[in-house]
Amino acid sequence: MTHTDAATSQETQNDNSTPESTQRVATGHESLTPLGAALRSAADGTYRDVRAEMRTMLIDEGLTRDPAMSVSEAREWTRTAIQGIADKGRGGAGFPTSVGGDGLLASSVVNFESISLADLSLTVKVGVHFGLFGGAIASLGTDEQLAQFVPSVISLELPGAYAMTEVGHGSNVQALETTITYDRESDELVVHSPTESATKTYIGNAAEDARMAVVYGQLEVAGESHGIHAVLVPVRDDAGAALPGVLIGDNGAKGGLDGVDNGTLRFEQVRVRRTMLLSRYGGVDESGAYVSPIENQNRRFFTMLGTLVRGRICVSGAGAQAGRKALSIATRYALQRRQFEAPGREDEVRLLDYLAHQRKLLPAIATAYALAFAQGDLVDTLQEVQSKPVGERDQKAQRELETRAAGMKAVSTRFANDIIQVCREACGGAGYMAENGLTELRRDADVFATFEGDNTVLLQLVAKGLLTNYKEMWGDLDMFGMVQAAVRTFTGTVIERAAARPAIERIMSTAQRRSDSDSVLDRSWHISMFEERERHVLDSLAQRMRTAGKDEDKAFEAFNSTQDHLLLAARTHIDRMVLESFVAGIDACEDEDAAQVLGTLCDLYALENLAGDRGWFQEHNLMSTSRAKAIVPAINQLCQELRPHALSLVEGMGVPEQLLGSAMLEG
Amino acid sequence: MTHTDAATSQETQNDNSTPESTQRVATGHESLTPLGAALRSAADGTYRDVRAEMRTMLIDEGLTRDPAMSVSEAREWTRTAIQGIADKGRGGAGFPTSVGGDGLLASSVVNFESISLADLSLTVKVGVHFGLFGGAIASLGTDEQLAQFVPSVISLELPGAYAMTEVGHGSNVQALETTITYDRESDELVVHSPTESATKTYIGNAAEDARMAVVYGQLEVAGESHGIHAVLVPVRDDAGAALPGVLIGDNGAKGGLDGVDNGTLRFEQVRVRRTMLLSRYGGVDESGAYVSPIENQNRRFFTMLGTLVRGRICVSGAGAQAGRKALSIATRYALQRRQFEAPGREDEVRLLDYLAHQRKLLPAIATAYALAFAQGDLVDTLQEVQSKPVGERDQKAQRELETRAAGMKAVSTRFANDIIQVCREACGGAGYMAENGLTELRRDADVFATFEGDNTVLLQLVAKGLLTNYKEMWGDLDMFGMVQAAVRTFTGTVIERAAARPAIERIMSTAQRRSDSDSVLDRSWHISMFEERERHVLDSLAQRMRTAGKDEDKAFEAFNSTQDHLLLAARTHIDRMVLESFVAGIDACEDEDAAQVLGTLCDLYALENLAGDRGWFQEHNLMSTSRAKAIVPAINQLCQELRPHALSLVEGMGVPEQLLGSAMLEG
Repeated sequence: MTHTDAATSQETQNDNSTPESTQRVATGHESLTPLGAALRSAADGTYRDVRAEMRTMLIDEGLTRDPAMSVSEAREWTRTAIQGIADKGRGGAGFPTSVGGDGLLASSVVNFESISLADLSLTVKVGVHFGLFGGAIASLGTDEQLAQFVPSVISLELPGAYAMTEVGHGSNVQALETTITYDRESDELVVHSPTESATKTYIGNAAEDARMAVVYGQLEVAGESHGIHAVLVPVRDDAGAALPGVLIGDNGAKGGLDGVDNGTLRFEQVRVRRTMLLSRYGGVDESGAYVSPIENQNRRFFTMLGTLVRGRICVSGAGAQAGRKALSIATRYALQRRQFEAPGREDEVRLLDYLAHQRKLLPAIATAYALAFAQGDLVDTLQEVQSKPVGERDQKAQRELETRAAGMKAVSTRFANDIIQVCREACGGAGYMAENGLTELRRDADVFATFEGDNTVLLQLVAKGLLTNYKEMWGDLDMFGMVQAAVRTFTGTVIERAAARPAIERIMSTAQRRSDSDSVLDRSWHISMFEERERHVLDSLAQRMRTAGKDEDKAFEAFNSTQDHLLLAARTHIDRMVLESFVAGIDACEDEDAAQVLGTLCDLYALENLAGDRGWFQEHNLMSTSRAKAIVPAINQLCQELRPHALSLVEGMGVPEQLLGSAMLEG
Repeated sequence: MTHTDAATSQETQNDNSTPESTQRVATGHESLTPLGAALRSAADGTYRDVRAEMRTMLIDEGLTRDPAMSVSEAREWTRTAIQGIADKGRGGAGFPTSVGGDGLLASSVVNFESISLADLSLTVKVGVHFGLFGGAIASLGTDEQLAQFVPSVISLELPGAYAMTEVGHGSNVQALETTITYDRESDELVVHSPTESATKTYIGNAAEDARMAVVYGQLEVAGESHGIHAVLVPVRDDAGAALPGVLIGDNGAKGGLDGVDNGTLRFEQVRVRRTMLLSRYGGVDESGAYVSPIENQNRRFFTMLGTLVRGRICVSGAGAQAGRKALSIATRYALQRRQFEAPGREDEVRLLDYLAHQRKLLPAIATAYALAFAQGDLVDTLQEVQSKPVGERDQKAQRELETRAAGMKAVSTRFANDIIQVCREACGGAGYMAENGLTELRRDADVFATFEGDNTVLLQLVAKGLLTNYKEMWGDLDMFGMVQAAVRTFTGTVIERAAARPAIERIMSTAQRRSDSDSVLDRSWHISMFEERERHVLDSLAQRMRTAGKDEDKAFEAFNSTQDHLLLAARTHIDRMVLESFVAGIDACEDEDAAQVLGTLCDLYALENLAGDRGWFQEHNLMSTSRAKAIVPAINQLCQELRPHALSLVEGMGVPEQLLGSAMLEG
């Protein structure tokens, strides 16, 4: 049975378009079109089996939450749900096998991403406890500390919090005020919040559930400061009461994530054993001396912060999933909802048959696919780079990973916030009703732009990474100082195509031979536009900063006057990486129909992206007027081509219908 | 005391910028900088005194709501607050003096806009009862009906609902299914919901409070259909119980506006007296015959719908206010919050000293001012046009008003949704805490993009208005039919500058003499760019639609293929109107300092707007590459110039500090 001779499915079809196949493929608890199943398999990437298994589990457990719940009901629901995850044995994802984990870092990310298909409060609670709290112990702790604590993290017997952010300092971790002072006499560490602004805040799990917290602060040993370190501090007793010297507050009502109990922590000279300091990269030995395998303090700091990379990859993935979920709801609605009559049509027109509606949803779906492939590559790279012990890791690869993780987190969460809102509006009044699943998603995903690194700050980190060309660089620790130091070592742009990109090389080499083409649908043209843009923005940025930065007194002004340029450099770099991943993903797709549709989506992604910068391209003589003019008509054309496949595109994005939690789609 | 010799206010100053005046002007319950007070007076427009009075009242009554309230608490709070508004005698705003009103249409809009400074649920509840329910009676009712019902609307003795939207039909009012059938025998009207999809939904005030509803439906008299009419239907008895045949539902949890009890209404053969039909434009006489002063049914329909114009103006104003409130919170926060150290600076740098942060907030503040002037003009026009009885109104002016109201509603609410999110993110984690005032604002304003007309549909109405050149046009009633009919009468673009724009004429005539200037800060260049863009987009649109529309069978496809172009035409038109209002507002500003700062803001508004379309301008040979390239640097420069005035800019936007409801600013 081919697509063309399949019977029309009246409920979801454009009245005059090629109908989608009515054939169905059983996939877990779902029933998909053959094209939908093939697209999903491609977009799911390396861990497609784990993802499929997780979907089945989430449907079985019914892990979607009623958005009408009060904050306390939501917290209770989430508490029960996370225990369920632990009881199912999913808590060991990402931990070393030596302490009961599955030994596969990537699986913890896949876990996190998958749960975000169901409920984001649960996702964040899982991320806080297993990922941040457990992850900090696993990354920063010694083998003894791992053996002591990780098993009870995995079983959730020891619910934990990750206490980094303070009232006075969010993005500037280096400036945290909390002190961790070694007291030689008692052989203890004294954890203290010296000021009001040193209060830890927005700490997930702190308000109600955490028994222990990883607390970041300034370590002082024998009067000497050693910079930021992390220490384990018990915060509640077995009965749930705050321990002496620990003042716990509740952040109360938030803009979303009602199921997560964010709170504040203040420490008044709280004493813990010396061995509670997570000491892999720096600790106090039995003689009371500070010891560390990393001599340079800045480098030590960055090494410790490097452990944040997984959290950012998780949030990037969850943001993208939230966007896909919103797109799934809005597109399915647009396939069923009709509005206004039209001459020559019996019924009112389906929303998705309007060009304006297509333009809202289809390019976003294309971006969603692009981000899925890029996220898949990121997870693969994480697994590859960090599966080795720290000392044996490829430093350049680690740095590239950090850059990409920071950038992907910023780009994916921006995408999520923007597109969820578009989807809400695209569903009209129904979109505003909580029972239809969009408003709560919007609320929950909102803060993804902020936590695990503010998006603006993260994009600056990306730019810094680009300017160093991944040479090791441990400069000043303030943001502009860092970037300035980077410029000093900058030796010109080399657009390094990510490893294993034979597909790109092949496309580009073929392109040489037909460079006179004027089509905007030429893949090689897309790639070269993305590359040229990045190269040009980065080169001119370095030049501007070098010129401006000569006067040391005006270092801040120099940095500041180029800040928008800096952010542009970061964004164009990530865009190029995303396009490369998409192209490679298509190349790896074995299903012919799926590969063809992915190709159309890739064209749409590239053109939508270029359309936004077409003013810039023309100003820099990188795009002719005629080609620039041809972009929007081509986008419209691609939307029309993709319209008949809408349902399959939705299915391929991988959010099971059972997890959409949208009453209007069930009616 | 001049600005320059004023002592530095350490708490809010850029460390190296010209400080703002420490002098303060008492303004109601506020204390403002002289510049802030002057800016506010300018932006407040014609009704500045009423606005000032309303601010004082709102502060006195403490009408801000705790965002942590449950839905039922929020509803109770709102119910009490609206009664307070009525008790203060504010319920008569906009109603004719003959029935106890103040006879000033504009004052009802100013009321609505002002209340939105405090709480949006209260605003919407006020809008539903006084504006929509009361307004429908006042506009569509006979003198007798006004006398009978309006006094108890004003006192809130008769809480009302406005039942237009149905489950099956939102934007397409013409297609409503509810029937209003005249029964000759009993001399009654039978109101009925024939299907599930005829259920009225999202009806404000319906779930708990309304005693009566204005119900829209298809009127049938003696077997003949007369199209959409509105009838008054009692829905609850004095004890609050649903009346026989009226099925009331509760829409439950929404994406915001927790204080508004939206619900559903179904009617099962509900009988009301014949005189309950709002009969100004069409009713049933004593002999049982249908009578109407407007013969053409379509024209009658549009006349009835024309009464929606005030609601749209209200929502436009409230959306803009919500955006200003968010900007006030985020900018004040950025003036106090510090992040990262910088060489040569003692403290960490204030957020607002970062270029990237300035770029997030200052162009938006410029847009907020632009919209304030445009909204002021719109309210003045409403007052001017609609203060006359319908029969004596200038039809062209009425049509222009409808077009502008639709467009401003779309543009202002788009601005609100976008900028509130930017502000939330610009405040980091603090922005996500409900107590800081941004997340609830975001939730509440969200639906403004949808109600009183979906923004996409409204922009299409704008385009239709433009294509008819305001000739009277009563074409087909489906959306594309309307537009197609419009094209048939289209005779070429005439950019008519809005009435009373001597300021613009003056600028443009001076400009002729120095047209060789290459500055992007030339006001005449801004105006001509806005005008050229509108003209070009509209002309080419008409041409495309005429060509495409020749084949009647493909009418829908023809319309559809140009839909994005249509929306662009609408947006560019509204943008030009907004710029004109801004320029005229500056011209009318008597305070020299304020006029100068407004000029800078106007430049920033214009350039930010042009920046977004600079690809388009280059493609159409309307902007040179060098000028296009100069725009972003100029935006950066303008941000730097405005930075020292940030506090005054905020004060000028007119949201009293006491109404911000933001804990982080009180700390």
